[in-house]
Amino acid sequence: MMPRAWTLRARPSGMPQHSDFELIEQPSAPLGENEVRIANRWLSVDPYMRGRMNDVKSYVPPFALGEPMQGGAIGEVVESRAADLPVGTKVQHMLGWREEAVLPAAQVQKLPPIDVPEEAFLGQLGMPGMTAYFGLLDVAQAKEGEVVFVSAAAGAVGSTVVQIAKAKGMTVIGSAGGAAKAEWVKSLGADKVIDYKAGNVVQALADAAPEGIDVYFDNVGGDHLDAALLAARLHARFAICGMIDIYNDGKPQSLKYLAKVIGARITIKGFLVGDHLAQVADFYADMGRWQAEGRLRREETVFDGIEATPDAFLGLFTGGNTGKMLVKL
Amino acid sequence: MMPRAWTLRARPSGMPQHSDFELIEQPSAPLGENEVRIANRWLSVDPYMRGRMNDVKSYVPPFALGEPMQGGAIGEVVESRAADLPVGTKVQHMLGWREEAVLPAAQVQKLPPIDVPEEAFLGQLGMPGMTAYFGLLDVAQAKEGEVVFVSAAAGAVGSTVVQIAKAKGMTVIGSAGGAAKAEWVKSLGADKVIDYKAGNVVQALADAAPEGIDVYFDNVGGDHLDAALLAARLHARFAICGMIDIYNDGKPQSLKYLAKVIGARITIKGFLVGDHLAQVADFYADMGRWQAEGRLRREETVFDGIEATPDAFLGLFTGGNTGKMLVKL
Repeated sequence: MMPRAWTLRARPSGMPQHSDFELIEQPSAPLGENEVRIANRWLSVDPYMRGRMNDVKSYVPPFALGEPMQGGAIGEVVESRAADLPVGTKVQHMLGWREEAVLPAAQVQKLPPIDVPEEAFLGQLGMPGMTAYFGLLDVAQAKEGEVVFVSAAAGAVGSTVVQIAKAKGMTVIGSAGGAAKAEWVKSLGADKVIDYKAGNVVQALADAAPEGIDVYFDNVGGDHLDAALLAARLHARFAICGMIDIYNDGKPQSLKYLAKVIGARITIKGFLVGDHLAQVADFYADMGRWQAEGRLRREETVFDGIEATPDAFLGLFTGGNTGKMLVKL
Repeated sequence: MMPRAWTLRARPSGMPQHSDFELIEQPSAPLGENEVRIANRWLSVDPYMRGRMNDVKSYVPPFALGEPMQGGAIGEVVESRAADLPVGTKVQHMLGWREEAVLPAAQVQKLPPIDVPEEAFLGQLGMPGMTAYFGLLDVAQAKEGEVVFVSAAAGAVGSTVVQIAKAKGMTVIGSAGGAAKAEWVKSLGADKVIDYKAGNVVQALADAAPEGIDVYFDNVGGDHLDAALLAARLHARFAICGMIDIYNDGKPQSLKYLAKVIGARITIKGFLVGDHLAQVADFYADMGRWQAEGRLRREETVFDGIEATPDAFLGLFTGGNTGKMLVKL
């Protein structure tokens, strides 16, 4: 059977529909010099992919219509013309949304020598984990003893923010949607958890942090951002990682407490993990040590089979995942 | 006649009314040791004062009901028990909104040795000028060759931002309300001026800065902030000085382009000039030199007499001033 790949058939308007995607058969190309053929085992779906479905200038080019989409993937080299990557090597790369990838060796990374299941390198030990690590420690400059608020704390990034913050001696307040997720976030070590589906998040954060917050790690925007503004202490830092609330609806963000940035001298910084890869050795060193010490926990929400990839992706926007959302091939 | 002072009679809800203020007679207190009596000649009214009329915890305590309000003032020592401040000394201090002030010498500053009319030390050579200088150069880290957008560019702060930016070799886009103000801002050296009353500011900024902006100096919030977000280049810095649009209405800010902070890695920083006073010698050195070189221009909008102080203050919120709004006693 010919390997299959998901293409973007139509650019979504608002929340993507199944009809925006098409599963096609993709003939296996012969390898060029220094290229490898990879059988993908795990595909990542991530909220940022929604942005690439729009035809707008952004930090990454839009997905091309009718072409296989891209994204993080883990697989095994099944054919190789690159000496460094023999058949059988487990690797990660960015040609996801497909069963088979053909790539130059330079665009393929061997999995780091950390003893975790391979799929963890798409989550806590991969891009989402780096996002948590660099966003919290570099962008927001969170320090021991400070109070950190993180939204979407049951997600791949947020759940790792919670654990890094605890490992570094911070007080952590997480928000999650629903009692089950909230309980899981608590089990990760969060000092307090807000179930945003159970009530007003602005009030809930004011109650959970009566002395205010020093850092906000934002994955959602919207009311959570407003809550963080109201709760911000003097010189608070906000690392803006994502605004999943508005990826699909395009509605304006309505913020009641934005003027608080002046009196509290808040710094709000947007960031992309790709800007921090020069420090990736620090990430692997810290995370490898915490993993070896048994301090890291993670969950995955796994969809089975290439056919399910759009379901997994769409689930990101409806709270369908605890921890990292993955597709297992 | 007993000296008079404006008190806050009632805390305004929304836009202040004349009935929120009361002009009272204030008996002249005898001087304590090291105190001086000052006959005020010029009173400053500034947008930040609106915040002090609310009974909320903020960076400065709220004005007390029934007590004379405070604010920048310039006056002359008319009685002295402080050796360093003999009768006749021209001074500045923070007991404005009144005809006569009694203060310890430590809370009174002699006017700096810069050859300008004394009232300039309430504007371009005073707190509003420092706000422009430190906000642009320290907070936003604006550099030669960059593109700076400044809102309320015909105001006391904004008009000084325009001139400092030009003195430092930046390209400047200012916004102002109405053709007359826009023309004045252009005459200050702004490369382009947007009349925000003439059309949509988001579109106008996109047209004025087709290559985008590096720095936004925000005095107003609202649509101007949204316009700046849309126009922001990679690694743009926003210095948030004021949000005059929402001081009175308390309505939420509606921002369509907030998610741009992520892709463009924007840094948004709120600031207060008081945090930067350790560098005030730099301000006087640069501004004194530019003044001596004839490079600084300023306007004042002057109301006459203590009775007019609330009119001057309220005019700040209705676009009533070009340059610094002052009351002359």
